[in-house]
Amino acid sequence: MLALVCRMGQLVLQRDYPEPIPQADEVLVRVTLAGICATDLEIVKGYVPDFSGVLGHEFVGVVEQAADSGWLGQRVVASINSGCQTCETCHKSGPEHCPNRRSLGIHNQDGVFAEYVVVPVRNLHCVPDDVPDERAIFTEPLAAALRIREQIVIRPSAKTAVIGPGRLGLLVAQVLHLAGEDVTLLGRRPDSLALPASWGLSTGLTTNYADNWFDFVVEVTGNEAGLAEALRLVRPLGSLVLKSTFAGGSQVDLTKIVVGEISVTGSRCGPFAPALRLLAGNALDTASLITAEYSLAEATAAFVRAAQPGVVKVLIRP
Amino acid sequence: MLALVCRMGQLVLQRDYPEPIPQADEVLVRVTLAGICATDLEIVKGYVPDFSGVLGHEFVGVVEQAADSGWLGQRVVASINSGCQTCETCHKSGPEHCPNRRSLGIHNQDGVFAEYVVVPVRNLHCVPDDVPDERAIFTEPLAAALRIREQIVIRPSAKTAVIGPGRLGLLVAQVLHLAGEDVTLLGRRPDSLALPASWGLSTGLTTNYADNWFDFVVEVTGNEAGLAEALRLVRPLGSLVLKSTFAGGSQVDLTKIVVGEISVTGSRCGPFAPALRLLAGNALDTASLITAEYSLAEATAAFVRAAQPGVVKVLIRP
Repeated sequence: MLALVCRMGQLVLQRDYPEPIPQADEVLVRVTLAGICATDLEIVKGYVPDFSGVLGHEFVGVVEQAADSGWLGQRVVASINSGCQTCETCHKSGPEHCPNRRSLGIHNQDGVFAEYVVVPVRNLHCVPDDVPDERAIFTEPLAAALRIREQIVIRPSAKTAVIGPGRLGLLVAQVLHLAGEDVTLLGRRPDSLALPASWGLSTGLTTNYADNWFDFVVEVTGNEAGLAEALRLVRPLGSLVLKSTFAGGSQVDLTKIVVGEISVTGSRCGPFAPALRLLAGNALDTASLITAEYSLAEATAAFVRAAQPGVVKVLIRP
Repeated sequence: MLALVCRMGQLVLQRDYPEPIPQADEVLVRVTLAGICATDLEIVKGYVPDFSGVLGHEFVGVVEQAADSGWLGQRVVASINSGCQTCETCHKSGPEHCPNRRSLGIHNQDGVFAEYVVVPVRNLHCVPDDVPDERAIFTEPLAAALRIREQIVIRPSAKTAVIGPGRLGLLVAQVLHLAGEDVTLLGRRPDSLALPASWGLSTGLTTNYADNWFDFVVEVTGNEAGLAEALRLVRPLGSLVLKSTFAGGSQVDLTKIVVGEISVTGSRCGPFAPALRLLAGNALDTASLITAEYSLAEATAAFVRAAQPGVVKVLIRP
């Protein structure tokens, strides 16, 4: 089958990649739409040096092989982590932190930039009929945005900033706005804020805000300068959530964290069911987030496009 | 009066330092005993570059001048932060994070390595008669240890490590042990662990523990290597509390924080009342923590001693 393969940071479009074969607890899914995420770009830059295989983890597809025939023909999305199901971590907190986990297109498991993908049946979620593929493709990043609210109490009265108006930041800001937060989406360039401003979201330039201005800050910039700004903007006793993944060590002003008694929480994958509920309710603008769509045969060009400034979501259609 | 003054990182013993004069809401305290803390050593190294004045914030003393005569002759300790009492931060969360605060011997307020000190009357706490000065001197660091339990929920079943068996680490470990935690005090050298082991505390060498071994880690080492070890030892979804103050930026492995969804909380000053309760109940060993005592005239020698490895608490008696 046709697949976009990443080997030692090199992207190669391969025409004869072996079609995956599902185990008893897995299904074979024909990928109908996939999305490029910042993590994919980071992997190509070397963030997961040992990854070798088909890239990609955001997808919608149709089940074509399954032990339980009830799944056949179902339109599905799937969470990306598969745990060993035997360790204490799996039992206590699910597969996301299993030390032996595989992660779709990220670690030890072929991903979705291909004609077919195999996923565990327990990771599947059916997509409601009235949610088209072009909305359902946002389930995984929207779940990641919702994850923040599973981790910490965010008071609706908290003065909140989301720094980084990119793929994930635009979803995080919408999710917090829907929840009633006083949220401002911050960026470095006015043009990156036009879209969220058109939704009626409060927006601003990061540098225009005084030190300690916000009670709660979500950092989604993906760069160290953004992290430094996030720390600058959060008030003493405030909370900072880190959504960006960084390769290697980063310079951090720990004095602000200790003297200001700041609470910093890392945040990764989230719950699919509430994400699908929000998508089914048409509660968020996702259509405006799609910058471009490429065929799988054009996938390397899609990656070049996705890395350009101002580009939000680039889709790949196998 | 005799006072140990710090100017641009230089310690000078001054014989003719002006005796402080209390305002209406302040009292004059004759210092009977003072303690050297890691923060004092950091200030001398340049951690608070703009500090100029009498150093020191851990003390016990006797009130000699007060508008309310009820305070006269009282043996007291005092919390170290004085807020403006007019800002939102003061009203919502007390003086510790007031942007205009003064901090005893740390920021804009003369400290306690002197014959006399002036403190706000609202910061005073009476020392119970059965708590001698040599125990009461631990009120401030013990309050800082208790602060951790004011900030986050620590499940009594959590596998807990305190890294750094120094002045503060020894108190943090005792406080968590008293609260029923499964706590292990970790250090780099076996000789630094002999004292806590003699108390019956579980101890170990930091390097002997596997990655992700602990649910909850308190970092009290004061150095970047200790912070890296703390991050290595805390499990995914675990909590890390930072007690050390670091000058300047530090290298931090943010990938572990984000991918492991670690929660990191800075922690500083704590509540005096429960600290005095624990000291009055004789619940902790503080006597063994006193390495040496110097007169105020020998204060510079006391600082040299306090900076040596293996030294726990060095006291200064004016």
